[in-house]
Amino acid sequence: MDERQTTRRPGGRSARVLAAVHQAVTELVGERGYGSFTVGEVAARAGVADTSVYRRWGSLEALLADVVLTRLNARSPMPDTGSLEGDLRAYAAQVAREITGPEGLALLRLAVALSGKGQPGLKERDALLEERRRQVQAMLDRAGARGENAPDALGVLDHVMAPMYIRVLFGAGPLTPEYVDGLVDRLL
Amino acid sequence: MDERQTTRRPGGRSARVLAAVHQAVTELVGERGYGSFTVGEVAARAGVADTSVYRRWGSLEALLADVVLTRLNARSPMPDTGSLEGDLRAYAAQVAREITGPEGLALLRLAVALSGKGQPGLKERDALLEERRRQVQAMLDRAGARGENAPDALGVLDHVMAPMYIRVLFGAGPLTPEYVDGLVDRLL
Repeated sequence: MDERQTTRRPGGRSARVLAAVHQAVTELVGERGYGSFTVGEVAARAGVADTSVYRRWGSLEALLADVVLTRLNARSPMPDTGSLEGDLRAYAAQVAREITGPEGLALLRLAVALSGKGQPGLKERDALLEERRRQVQAMLDRAGARGENAPDALGVLDHVMAPMYIRVLFGAGPLTPEYVDGLVDRLL
Repeated sequence: MDERQTTRRPGGRSARVLAAVHQAVTELVGERGYGSFTVGEVAARAGVADTSVYRRWGSLEALLADVVLTRLNARSPMPDTGSLEGDLRAYAAQVAREITGPEGLALLRLAVALSGKGQPGLKERDALLEERRRQVQAMLDRAGARGENAPDALGVLDHVMAPMYIRVLFGAGPLTPEYVDGLVDRLL
């Protein structure tokens, strides 16, 4: 994670501030949820000055959007197992893990909150969705190139991701391996 | 809506306060989103005293949970068209309408926000989900009693409702009649 960010945004101290602030936000979101902490609390936990946060991100909302985008994207490198079925099972299991822990769930909930009217996170959210769709499409294209009969990306989003997201967002039941595999079976 | 509430909770002034406060919350949620208004603003718009709101609901969060539960439930009487396909198409179209307008979307987003850790809306949310599941099950049971081959309630939630919810929550595209009907076709 940190290594990745360092690679993306080179520059010693700047990269360390970024990593520390992102980690502080992720922890606070997991502990307290959206809307229950201030820039001052983020800065204190990250060990940086409030002004460093404001200078870099401008506002708490812009910071939150940046964290959601970076973390939910960075956590999902796509599997490449050599078969469509293997890729889909691995990807579904990975998304399930990602959104099941307290921090992942909080980040998912935060993504929804930032999608609200007049929220500053709309551009970031769209970029996140586009990136996710691109990743899924690349996985399906590989299957097609191998001669496999692949579903379209919307089918994966609607019938594998969406049921898991809604289950977790509304606390409607655990994402057991049987449940997650069942979604993939049904799609295939 | 108001008539329904008056019927459910008899008692003149009390019922009028309830209807006015619910309406004020729904409007404010639609206009500004969650977390962007106070009990004082709700009371002013409803034309009641702040103390009336606090006495009845205790807190803004408890009031929001009550509104989400009442509105999302009251808006969804289940269709009874005489066939499973007709019922599912009508139900899916109804849910799509319900969550597409600015107020419906705001209520859905609010339901997610209230599902967060430590939020006071958890009990209400679970009651809402349970009621929704009961409604869907009753519709499917009618189909079974007619000798139709009905899917299970989880299938309807996972593969018809969840894709629509996620599409709307993340602004991932419009719920066109073709899209909504396509979800039902696929389930059947």
